Order: sequence, then C-alpha cells, then structure tokens
Amino acid sequence: VRLPADEAWSLLRASDHGVLATVHAERGVDAVPVVFAVHGERILVPVDTVKAKSTTRLQRLVNLAHDPRCVLLVDHYDDDWTQLWWVRVHATATVVDGRAEALTAFPAYREADAVTATIVLEPGAVTGWRAG
Amino acid sequence: VRLPADEAWSLLRASDHGVLATVHAERGVDAVPVVFAVHGERILVPVDTVKAKSTTRLQRLVNLAHDPRCVLLVDHYDDDWTQLWWVRVHATATVVDGRAEALTAFPAYREADAVTATIVLEPGAVTGWRAG
Repeated sequence: VRLPADEAWSLLRASDHGVLATVHAERGVDAVPVVFAVHGERILVPVDTVKAKSTTRLQRLVNLAHDPRCVLLVDHYDDDWTQLWWVRVHATATVVDGRAEALTAFPAYREADAVTATIVLEPGAVTGWRAG
Repeated sequence: VRLPADEAWSLLRASDHGVLATVHAERGVDAVPVVFAVHGERILVPVDTVKAKSTTRLQRLVNLAHDPRCVLLVDHYDDDWTQLWWVRVHATATVVDGRAEALTAFPAYREADAVTATIVLEPGAVTGWRAG
C-alpha cells in the first residue's frame, strides 16, 4: 500500500539510519549505509570520524560531486511480511563543512570534531509503502 | 575494517534481505528493498506476487532493462556501532521468467506462482566492512 506523504515523513522523522544510493561514474550506481537526522524538510547525513573507514577518500562524496542526485531508502524488514514498510527519498545533495547541529541527536556526534562534513539532502519525491 | 571476500560471502549466504540499487534513466538512481537467496555464486531476487505492489510495472525491472548494472547492499545496523557491518555486491542483472528453485527457501515462495520472475545477479566486486 502506497503511503501518504505525511505518513512517509513521520516514519522518516522516527528513523535514524538507511541506505544512500548515488550515481557512480563508471559502475552506474553505488550504495552505502548511513545514519541521518531530519531537520525541517532537509535530511542531514554526517561524514564522521567515528565509524572506521577504509579510506579517507569517501566514494559517496566523489559520486555526489560528480552527480548530486541520490536516493535515501529507509527499510523496515521483518520476518513477518505483514510488518514490512519502507520510505524512499529522491534528493539532491550538497556537502557542507562541519557538523550540522541536528546531528548532535546522536550521542557519538556530541563532540564537534566527530563530524567533518554534512551531506544535506534536499528532498524531491518522497514515497513509501507498507504491507497490507 | 574491510572484510576479506570469503567473510563477505559468508555474511551474504547467511542473509536474506537487502537493498537493490539500480540506474534510473532520469533520476540517476533508484533503490528498493528486496529479499534474496544465494545460489552458488549468483544471487537470486524474486519478483513476487506476495508482497502487495502499488503497480504491476515494477520500476526496478524497467531500470534493469535499460541498464543491467546494479548494487545489492546488505546492511546490519545496530544502535551499538561496534556491531555494524555491511556487504556490497556490484552486479549485472538478467531477468528470467518464473521462480528459481533456491527461492523456495522462503516459505512464502513454496507456491510456484508466488514468483513470476527472478532477477539473477552476476556479482562483480563483492566488498564488505565491519566496525572495529
């Protein structure tokens, strides 16, 4: 069942992690798990120093610099398929230096230097679905 | 920490759901939750009649017909960030009619007509990460 926009936004505001899909210049698409905070009608994704990275050249930032179109998918899985739901946000991303204030909702980000940059998602279409 | 390929594959084989990201001709990228089964070195994603769809024209199939490159991301989230892990498969997709046998691992797919087609992912790069 397609969700009304207000219900999709309510689920987004109650969530804090999802998958960010971006355009990869050679491979077509890329995807990476992210945490996020909703602030007004924007969605804020940290570039952090907390979760160990395998490289300092984050592919998601390379991809977004090349093409700012992206999708954030928040997926609720359950072995009971009557409980499934998901919300998808098509968005345009800009990257700003430093930590957006709303990201302090995560205890791990209370130290300002835990976040080096913030990916700001400007949502276009927000759609969602739930079972039954 | 980057995972060795065998560990990434072990996690894949022990998983049954993730996010499939595809190339969208106008929007750049798209993403949708999927269930899957690993069969040998291929990954099988059902097109089912079980989980209610909002349309019979599934955008994931339109996208893959246009560009078969895709990514399957399996993400283990936990509020304790020392427990995080994910596995990412860059793949090329082909779509075949009917239900692949391996999909009967899902009780909901024991009826043959519960699956109308199978998206077969031929993995290229398989990478993974876990915290700490």
